[in-house]
Amino acid sequence: MKPPVHVAVTGAAGQIAYSLIFRIAAGEMLGKDQPLILHLLDIPEAIDKLAGTVMEVQDCAFPLVREVLPTAEPEAAFAGCRYALLVGARPRGPGMERKDLLEANARIFSAQGKALAAAADPGVKVLVVGNPANTNALIARENAKAKLDPRQFTAMLRLDHNRAIGQLAAKCGAQVSDVEKFVVWGNHSSTQYPDLSHATVKGRPAAGLVEREWYEKTFIPTVQQRGAAIIKARGASSAASAAAAAIDHLHDWALGSDGRWVSMGVASDGGYGIKPGVVFGCPCVCKGGDYQIVRDLPLDAFSRQRLSATDTELREERAAIESLLG
Amino acid sequence: MKPPVHVAVTGAAGQIAYSLIFRIAAGEMLGKDQPLILHLLDIPEAIDKLAGTVMEVQDCAFPLVREVLPTAEPEAAFAGCRYALLVGARPRGPGMERKDLLEANARIFSAQGKALAAAADPGVKVLVVGNPANTNALIARENAKAKLDPRQFTAMLRLDHNRAIGQLAAKCGAQVSDVEKFVVWGNHSSTQYPDLSHATVKGRPAAGLVEREWYEKTFIPTVQQRGAAIIKARGASSAASAAAAAIDHLHDWALGSDGRWVSMGVASDGGYGIKPGVVFGCPCVCKGGDYQIVRDLPLDAFSRQRLSATDTELREERAAIESLLG
Repeated sequence: MKPPVHVAVTGAAGQIAYSLIFRIAAGEMLGKDQPLILHLLDIPEAIDKLAGTVMEVQDCAFPLVREVLPTAEPEAAFAGCRYALLVGARPRGPGMERKDLLEANARIFSAQGKALAAAADPGVKVLVVGNPANTNALIARENAKAKLDPRQFTAMLRLDHNRAIGQLAAKCGAQVSDVEKFVVWGNHSSTQYPDLSHATVKGRPAAGLVEREWYEKTFIPTVQQRGAAIIKARGASSAASAAAAAIDHLHDWALGSDGRWVSMGVASDGGYGIKPGVVFGCPCVCKGGDYQIVRDLPLDAFSRQRLSATDTELREERAAIESLLG
Repeated sequence: MKPPVHVAVTGAAGQIAYSLIFRIAAGEMLGKDQPLILHLLDIPEAIDKLAGTVMEVQDCAFPLVREVLPTAEPEAAFAGCRYALLVGARPRGPGMERKDLLEANARIFSAQGKALAAAADPGVKVLVVGNPANTNALIARENAKAKLDPRQFTAMLRLDHNRAIGQLAAKCGAQVSDVEKFVVWGNHSSTQYPDLSHATVKGRPAAGLVEREWYEKTFIPTVQQRGAAIIKARGASSAASAAAAAIDHLHDWALGSDGRWVSMGVASDGGYGIKPGVVFGCPCVCKGGDYQIVRDLPLDAFSRQRLSATDTELREERAAIESLLG
């Protein structure tokens, strides 16, 4: 048996974490041969409720779980962690403007970035799930950069990616595993760009299998607005599907994507015309515990316009919290 | 790839199902090579909410999921199913006596037993999670016995089993996988008997590792009352740990328990002095898609008294709903 690895989950008393922690504990993220020490962070007001989650993890008798450590202290939460899932974020409250929301989260994620730099394993892989995920990841990484590489901080686009694959497979009467070379570009927000132009279904170009009108008028808006549709149906925001996407993201990053493209929010580096300075959803292939952006894809005018729009939004988010970038 | 199997989950819009469905869909119950068609049953009032769960399953892009069929009709829910997880039950409402609760559930489970007999695969494996689980399993099986063997109907004691193993391992400073030959006897209720007398921890008899006083005064009541402790901590009843136990129960029944003892509520057959006519938690070993009760364990006077007490409760539950046994 391998030595245990430390895994941190923030917002651990919340709904997404409740769908996430037990699947991590069962070995779904890092494999059935990887023992775990779980660090569960939440705010002091949620610690009593978190105790219930800790009891339930114990009650599952998961063979891989060596210890469960609940805490309200970020440095304790990240101590020695190789994986950090930053799920907790401040939701928009009554009367809060978008800028207020960005700032409230900037404070949380700047503190967590500093705590990660101070306490985490130097090779820590960070996934930000809490919204606005891309900009929160940017803030955390900028506050950690004395010790950690910006490449270690990623934002979750995988939920959008999985939603899009589900829609496309259903439209084509195919299985989700038949879909390859699909990517969601940009921000995890309504400006995201789910891009069919490189995708294949059973090896055939997706663009030839669906109407252009369906792609532009149905597919893209459905994927962009799926979160709102789930809230309307459930009376609560996506939890289990968000958790599943987080598992997929870190599973593939840690153990490889088998040559398949996955969408990850990663440090922009000038590729595809997206200048450094934001966390941008890109097609990636994961191998050997690392990811590489898929390079040199041709972008048509429609794609370029969509990438530019979501980039503009990310630059605006960045400008709103620039003072907190450390 | 194997052909897909049909799996039914009832109470599918509820909290336990929300923790359960996504883990089944990910292949945790029947293996990563077993495609699935999920049948999700709930009452008509919950169908809108259930639609949200169906959307989220689609949004996960689980490679194993071939179809998701939400319904409010038991026969549609069970059509062709090889596995049926009966999670939905009527909770105790204000002013409801225990007998009212038993009768309300008896009506649900008698209808579901009939629907299983009419529509399910002849080899269906049924797990009842909804409380009172043992008596609900009895009712379902008695209403299905024209077509299905009583052995196909089981009740969930695995949550109690897992809770107890977690407590014992923590007490001994051991891992849960170090604990073997543990069993919870009887009813999934506060009369259950978590029995250490045969258990071993790293091969050593558990009875020699803990004080008798701890066993009788701390361990047994902690396990018996764990559900209430979780409600107190979480402000909601166990969901993720109940789902994990359901996964474990059916996983082991379908794919084997590797020689280990597991606790399952099964048809009493006279063994251990428990006459036929109830569903009773027993030590079982699973192999080749079947289970066998572990036979001929010696029972001391303390154990005999405990088995008798939980049996008495089960006979009282049976008497309260005798008219609905079909």
